[in-house]
Amino acid sequence: MDYESIFKAAIDRLHDEGRYRVFIDILRTKGSFPNAHCFHGHNGPKPITVWCSNDYLGMGQHPTVVEAMEEALHSVGAGSGGTRNIGGNTHYHVELEAELASLHGKEAALLFTSGYVSNEAALSTLGKLLPGCIIFSDELNHASMIAGIRTSGCEKRVFRHNDLDHLEQLLDEAPADAPKLIAFESVYSMDGDIAPIAEICDLADKYGAITYLDEVHAVGMYGQHGGGISERDGVADRVTLIEGTLGKAFGVMGGYVTADRNIIDCIRSYAPGFIFTTSLSPVLVAGALASVRHLKASQEERAGQQAGAAMLKAKFRDAGLPVMDSVTHIVPLLVGCPVEAKRISDILLAEYGLYVQPINFPTVPRGTERLRFTPGPIHTEAMMDELTEALVEIWGRLELQAVKAA
Amino acid sequence: MDYESIFKAAIDRLHDEGRYRVFIDILRTKGSFPNAHCFHGHNGPKPITVWCSNDYLGMGQHPTVVEAMEEALHSVGAGSGGTRNIGGNTHYHVELEAELASLHGKEAALLFTSGYVSNEAALSTLGKLLPGCIIFSDELNHASMIAGIRTSGCEKRVFRHNDLDHLEQLLDEAPADAPKLIAFESVYSMDGDIAPIAEICDLADKYGAITYLDEVHAVGMYGQHGGGISERDGVADRVTLIEGTLGKAFGVMGGYVTADRNIIDCIRSYAPGFIFTTSLSPVLVAGALASVRHLKASQEERAGQQAGAAMLKAKFRDAGLPVMDSVTHIVPLLVGCPVEAKRISDILLAEYGLYVQPINFPTVPRGTERLRFTPGPIHTEAMMDELTEALVEIWGRLELQAVKAA
Ligand SMILES: Cc1ncc(COP(=O)(O)O)c(C=O)c1O
Ligand SMILES: Cc1ncc(COP(=O)(O)O)c(C=O)c1O
Repeated sequence: MDYESIFKAAIDRLHDEGRYRVFIDILRTKGSFPNAHCFHGHNGPKPITVWCSNDYLGMGQHPTVVEAMEEALHSVGAGSGGTRNIGGNTHYHVELEAELASLHGKEAALLFTSGYVSNEAALSTLGKLLPGCIIFSDELNHASMIAGIRTSGCEKRVFRHNDLDHLEQLLDEAPADAPKLIAFESVYSMDGDIAPIAEICDLADKYGAITYLDEVHAVGMYGQHGGGISERDGVADRVTLIEGTLGKAFGVMGGYVTADRNIIDCIRSYAPGFIFTTSLSPVLVAGALASVRHLKASQEERAGQQAGAAMLKAKFRDAGLPVMDSVTHIVPLLVGCPVEAKRISDILLAEYGLYVQPINFPTVPRGTERLRFTPGPIHTEAMMDELTEALVEIWGRLELQAVKAA
Repeated sequence: MDYESIFKAAIDRLHDEGRYRVFIDILRTKGSFPNAHCFHGHNGPKPITVWCSNDYLGMGQHPTVVEAMEEALHSVGAGSGGTRNIGGNTHYHVELEAELASLHGKEAALLFTSGYVSNEAALSTLGKLLPGCIIFSDELNHASMIAGIRTSGCEKRVFRHNDLDHLEQLLDEAPADAPKLIAFESVYSMDGDIAPIAEICDLADKYGAITYLDEVHAVGMYGQHGGGISERDGVADRVTLIEGTLGKAFGVMGGYVTADRNIIDCIRSYAPGFIFTTSLSPVLVAGALASVRHLKASQEERAGQQAGAAMLKAKFRDAGLPVMDSVTHIVPLLVGCPVEAKRISDILLAEYGLYVQPINFPTVPRGTERLRFTPGPIHTEAMMDELTEALVEIWGRLELQAVKAA
């Protein structure tokens, strides 16, 4: 058996398609993020400006977060040393779960090592506990939800992205007495559009379904307390489970789900991805706790991010760059080809010291390859001008179409 | 659809079986671990001694580790802010992967958010890339390997625990031209026994299989540099993939696999559990890097752990407690009933301030419920005497059988 050549061929396929990924080796510079430093390659080592971080609000360098982590590091140590059940349940974990439940107006919350694991573990466990359950899944749902749904063993019906009519049609076609779960996201992170949560909940009520909402790209950033789009729209109490991450706007790492006490207790008691793994480091949990608490009270970061995103979209549009429709903080520029997207990104980094990663398949569908910018409250107008000018120059140089994307 | 009562019933089943889990709310006291502090309940709040941590060598409080994390926290910030491909690849990640590859004498390594995710992601991806692959899995393999094998979609053949004859029989029965993968652990963490790695590699050679070895409970603790049992036995180069965790003996959090460059590149490029998640916090990576480097050079922690485990086993045996056979640092006492195991554990904590979690189904098979002690280099002989005396008293009080387990 020639294993070597099978693995080699799998890599060659990626090179052939122009989507072999090379990770850019960077170090952020705390205190002056989005400034960072890139290592050898790409004309480096040199200072760069990061335009594609999901530390959306810069909380990863917020003094409150850093201090909380330092304190935990010194009083408790580096890791938890065990699973939640066997020695790894610190008081920080208990406190953060209470804080997250309250953030979403739910009875209980459960921490996971990542948002990926929270989706995978929660959806697979819910599906297994509801015999005969049918899961209705938005076609653009994240890979982690897809993984959880697959592991659940449930029948899956995929509805067209944010398409209420299609969802209703599928619900209507399903047996009336089967348990049903609708899984979707609030902010879709590659397009920047938003789900009609209230209307989906209406359909759930009508057809007796429970709802599972991924707020990974909204928590911390939307709603009066950072509870996400479900808080902004006043519908959090209508959603059965709300899932989020501690690794994006909260600036740290980890994931969670919130819901009624019994549902959370079921996931806690039955999900292998929760049970059989070392719990989150108390250092991370302490940092996330500080971050969640800060963003519950402070509006400054959210307001700054919205202003920055609006400004960057306007600048791109005025410059004739193909900015895609987005009603959120996410600013995507359509390229439509993995090779061109990588070329633009390479030039930006090598010649301008501007870092934005090309987004290609399987993260987005083939033919919709793009650059995805995430301006935050710390990006200045001067940085935006520099970026826009660089893009206009490169677009001209590569003779790319400078029209607004569909 | 009455979802409420379905979830309620799932919880009631656990109560009925006596295996509903209550997490003990503790905070370790850095600098004086295994001492810790337990919160309300269990006669607390009060100081306790932890006997069931998987921070086996106390590296979670080692000054080198804590300093490295503090430095990263201050120079880079709390989180990575992105997936490995999109902004989350820091120089710390690159360095740690090189260090881990070298630890196991492999060409390359890949970091994951946990050991669980590394097993799940690596095994599922390998299986998918090898069409028609049959996976041979030890019956006591960890839940994370089982999850990965299931997701791979491959045919699975389970061999009796560490049973070479049975493994050979299954290999022999399989079609000669089918790709084959043998998945097993080095140290089995609930019994403390060790796999015959060399002999399994002999079978792999004979039948053209690749091998996947989970060294989660051995890395840092066995071998001249902490490379695990495969290093101790001088067979690391014969194993195709070696997997480990950063959350146990290394004292931090995270997981990894090491192997040939092409295999690692395949997992890096194809595994959803690697691609679609925020990368490990650079703070954790910096701490793990310091820990791995320290344990590559220092023998002190390993020697101390081995001495402690031998001493505790001898004390238990001399006192007539039912200590199970174990050739490693793990010291299990057989109870054989979930209710009794929990009762002993509750008394130890409430009356003696000694914390050891009862281990019940699904972590171990029903009927083999146990207490599992993990003495480390920092537990003193006085602590061991205190523990042994407490156990003898409780065993007498509950009229438990004080005979050596089978
Ligand atoms: C919609 C969505 N859900 C879940 C995740 C996973 O979250 P985490 O990065 O915390 O694993 C991501 C991205 O990483 C995401 O985009
Ligand atoms: C054998 C084995 N493999 C993998 C894991 C998972 O490692 P981690 O805790 O880093 O997720 C564990 C325990 O947690 C384990 O016992």
